[in-house]
Amino acid sequence: MNDQVHLADYLFRRLHQVGVRAVHGVPGDYNLTALDYIVPAGLEWVGNCNELNAGYAADGYARVNGIGAFTTTFGVGELSAINAVGGAYAEMSPVVHIVGTPSRAFQAQGRRIHHTLCTGDPSDYNIYADMTTKITAARENLVDEATATDQIDSALRECVLQSRPVYIQLPTDMVTTLIPSSTLATPLNLSPPTHDQAISKIAADQILQKIYASKQPFLLVDAGASRYKAVDEANELARRTGIVTCTTPFGKSIINETLDNFHGVYGTTGKRNFSSWVQSCDLVLYIGPRVSNINTYGFTTIPRTEVSITFEKDSVSVYGSQNYNVPIKAVLRDIVDHLDIARLPKYTPYPDIPSPRQDLAALAPANPAGALSHDTFWTRMSHFFRPGDIVMTETGTSSTGGREFVLPENTRLINSSLWLSIGFMLPAAQGACLAQRHSQTEGRTILFEGDGSFQVTAQELSTIIRKRLDIIIFLMNNNGYTIERLIHGRDAEYNEVAPWRYLESPSCYGAPTDGSYKVQTAKVETWGELHALLADENFQTGRGLRMVEVMLDTYDAPEALKTLTSRNIKAYQQKS
Amino acid sequence: MNDQVHLADYLFRRLHQVGVRAVHGVPGDYNLTALDYIVPAGLEWVGNCNELNAGYAADGYARVNGIGAFTTTFGVGELSAINAVGGAYAEMSPVVHIVGTPSRAFQAQGRRIHHTLCTGDPSDYNIYADMTTKITAARENLVDEATATDQIDSALRECVLQSRPVYIQLPTDMVTTLIPSSTLATPLNLSPPTHDQAISKIAADQILQKIYASKQPFLLVDAGASRYKAVDEANELARRTGIVTCTTPFGKSIINETLDNFHGVYGTTGKRNFSSWVQSCDLVLYIGPRVSNINTYGFTTIPRTEVSITFEKDSVSVYGSQNYNVPIKAVLRDIVDHLDIARLPKYTPYPDIPSPRQDLAALAPANPAGALSHDTFWTRMSHFFRPGDIVMTETGTSSTGGREFVLPENTRLINSSLWLSIGFMLPAAQGACLAQRHSQTEGRTILFEGDGSFQVTAQELSTIIRKRLDIIIFLMNNNGYTIERLIHGRDAEYNEVAPWRYLESPSCYGAPTDGSYKVQTAKVETWGELHALLADENFQTGRGLRMVEVMLDTYDAPEALKTLTSRNIKAYQQKS
Repeated sequence: MNDQVHLADYLFRRLHQVGVRAVHGVPGDYNLTALDYIVPAGLEWVGNCNELNAGYAADGYARVNGIGAFTTTFGVGELSAINAVGGAYAEMSPVVHIVGTPSRAFQAQGRRIHHTLCTGDPSDYNIYADMTTKITAARENLVDEATATDQIDSALRECVLQSRPVYIQLPTDMVTTLIPSSTLATPLNLSPPTHDQAISKIAADQILQKIYASKQPFLLVDAGASRYKAVDEANELARRTGIVTCTTPFGKSIINETLDNFHGVYGTTGKRNFSSWVQSCDLVLYIGPRVSNINTYGFTTIPRTEVSITFEKDSVSVYGSQNYNVPIKAVLRDIVDHLDIARLPKYTPYPDIPSPRQDLAALAPANPAGALSHDTFWTRMSHFFRPGDIVMTETGTSSTGGREFVLPENTRLINSSLWLSIGFMLPAAQGACLAQRHSQTEGRTILFEGDGSFQVTAQELSTIIRKRLDIIIFLMNNNGYTIERLIHGRDAEYNEVAPWRYLESPSCYGAPTDGSYKVQTAKVETWGELHALLADENFQTGRGLRMVEVMLDTYDAPEALKTLTSRNIKAYQQKS
Repeated sequence: MNDQVHLADYLFRRLHQVGVRAVHGVPGDYNLTALDYIVPAGLEWVGNCNELNAGYAADGYARVNGIGAFTTTFGVGELSAINAVGGAYAEMSPVVHIVGTPSRAFQAQGRRIHHTLCTGDPSDYNIYADMTTKITAARENLVDEATATDQIDSALRECVLQSRPVYIQLPTDMVTTLIPSSTLATPLNLSPPTHDQAISKIAADQILQKIYASKQPFLLVDAGASRYKAVDEANELARRTGIVTCTTPFGKSIINETLDNFHGVYGTTGKRNFSSWVQSCDLVLYIGPRVSNINTYGFTTIPRTEVSITFEKDSVSVYGSQNYNVPIKAVLRDIVDHLDIARLPKYTPYPDIPSPRQDLAALAPANPAGALSHDTFWTRMSHFFRPGDIVMTETGTSSTGGREFVLPENTRLINSSLWLSIGFMLPAAQGACLAQRHSQTEGRTILFEGDGSFQVTAQELSTIIRKRLDIIIFLMNNNGYTIERLIHGRDAEYNEVAPWRYLESPSCYGAPTDGSYKVQTAKVETWGELHALLADENFQTGRGLRMVEVMLDTYDAPEALKTLTSRNIKAYQQKS
């Protein structure tokens, strides 16, 4: 290794070291020269159609890979992507956003160059960075060669440890600045800060006593468990204690759903409503809460503080009265390591309602001639999934319906439960699918998305095609914004969308006809058509793009969505 | 009229009163109920495919109509559109952005609802509004029924008078709040603040003396002339004085291009480079400067202060040494009203180079079998334009090439010369075309856009189709980001785009086949093919969507763009 490297070289090599294998983005005149360093650093360049989509794709990549990155140009580029950054912050996705900015000389002089407001004031150059203050975990402006490597290292570390987006500005004149390469020889330290192990053991011991003493405990695992890298510990706790375990909508797929004591997403309405049972529990282990109205069914599934032990990222709270400042992973590890199975009582059995797996097994075959409908569509789709799959459900009917999936082991479900920006999931699927390819593991990427959402970011299908990704897309065509229809304006013009010919998209977006990439499209309206397609071996395990237009009634939706939306709209209009 | 109206009703009626006839936007659960008031207020609802596109469309609508409006939901919606708002600010487009926000109760309690960061802190609810501070002319949060009407009136007034975007937040629980309707009976006062007429006359008189005394004057009209509503005055000055007149790239089409003393865009490189002649002028009347590197050919066309009289929005500066605080429109009106033609000397004739009209007349017919190329494409296209046309040129080869157009009277050219966000122009064309329809004037909307730009916001073609707009689109296919190739990475992978089948887009995006809307598509590669198409009466004057894929060489570009980009890239990399 040479003694000095170009700053951009350092940046992308460090990204590679922390696990990034692809940089998404859109070229622009302030990031162009930096792009030359991506491929030499061992990273794949993914040119998205626009910046918002690039941000979404990097987020999807990060959720699968553990970290993602994208680059945009100053001003117009970064602002187009800011919604994606906000979403990554809210939902804790570790994304590095690299913004190519004008030269330091231009900035200091307040030059009236394009992509600024052209007021002539040097403060013009800070406006966009300032907008990111509340939605990024770190912001670094690489204007000083003496500090640049530390700034990069610090930003990447915060990105990983906080599991949140960071923002790095790279002025055009700094791209080729020579900096010492020596620090590259030492991998970046990504270990969490040390904690007091004695405290963790004290906390674990107290919690174990509560578990041993409980008569009717409940384990509720939310998405923080994955964001704080405590998935193994949470699973071990569920498996070894046998405590009745549920996830939240956002936490779904963290817990192995084949466990006998796994009972699905807590809060699911209808026949599996067991909130009264949970309300009577004497202990709730609440792991990694990420509270939003959506993730808690309108705040109805948050356990009572007085019986809850709540595991946050760096603390655990016992009954709201005692707090230990210990990392979630450490204290959960201490709990499972010191768990004495023999001391577990025979817990009050779960209420006499079937588990999702039992529901699935009991489901009578659908009438092949019958029209598809939400009430059993999502449960029935469970038969299609296989270990290793990444299943992605776009906000709306898909994300709500997807709570009904009964997933095999080692399956990952990705949805949005806090940010809920429609259009997110198609670009995110491009990123996730690429991360799956990079991980060289078995499994498919399967996306469920509504028609209205597809239109928001449709062009990213062309990136999927261009990158020859293997993906299955179920496009749920219910003729407009059904989720909005349920809230307000059932038949309003504003809830309609243009009647696209969705299955023409692959050809329009450049699918090759030379056999280098396979595209399979189908439209299904009945259970018979759907099952025939799902049974097709080529569809199941084939390569390329498989795109299915699933025809559904305009007003049909999962029961849970109907309940939620009718509840929400009343709250929205309530006067303060 | 009833004594009371719902707040949302007031808002949209006021928008109608100030000239808005269409509201663009995307529905979301926090703006849904407000949408019910749009059509009853006499406004057309335009549901765009995504929020950025809605913002762009409203901007395009505003540039033609004088004011535009769009609505998004809180958080995800408004952030997706923020780049469009920044562009409207930089380029002075009067756009009203209405954001539907959560109820005041939710906000006060800091409820962890979707589209927030879900931290539980009430300040979560201010984050997005704070981001707009530097890119909007006014921000109003309608949380108080006692002040809401004043806030709306004030915001709309600032929007019109400053010709810049404004941001209005409407909480869900305020939509149906009853407020007095009485103020609706009085049209909103949109007159500029009064000024000292005596000062304006003094300034005008001094300027007239300079004009009479000048031997070689030059009139340079920039885009501020239209933003400050001084188009008529600028034209009258050019026509009546006969002074050699040019526009800037951004100001093009403000001045009637059929005037004999009109000499095109100042700064155009190549054979019409007459900067040395301008440098020797003893007087430059510089109207409405909007300085950016792009609009001034890298700051080379800014006239020398010591011979310039510069007309800003509310002031005029004589030789940089004397300033009058008078509105541009008033002082220009005084100048033209008091101009004594008899006192104008016979000015030094213009340098001996042909005007754009002479260039056009002298152009030899192209070889019908020859491939299309930039060097004469743009000039030749001039024959196609007719009075009343709106001609839109997307950033890149199109906006640079479009400077060569020789426009008929009463033609409007729309480009971006400060913000330069690629993807802007297609949604903007949807908005502009709708505004043209609403104005019930003759003329066509004609868009020139590159392939890379088209991919950014392509789905808005479906809104054009859905709204049955009559538009002509020239899609300049040069196989990627040619403007970026010229700057850096001539053959880099990152400057490639996916090979779409562009002419399949109309069908994919839902063009009807029942004859209710006509779609004509064509691909042209030679001058012969292009001329045959342009001569087709149906293409020229027909209705519906006419989309032409213009095939160009990957590295071909207008000469001016090559010059500019080679100059820019050096500046970008210059160390401070």
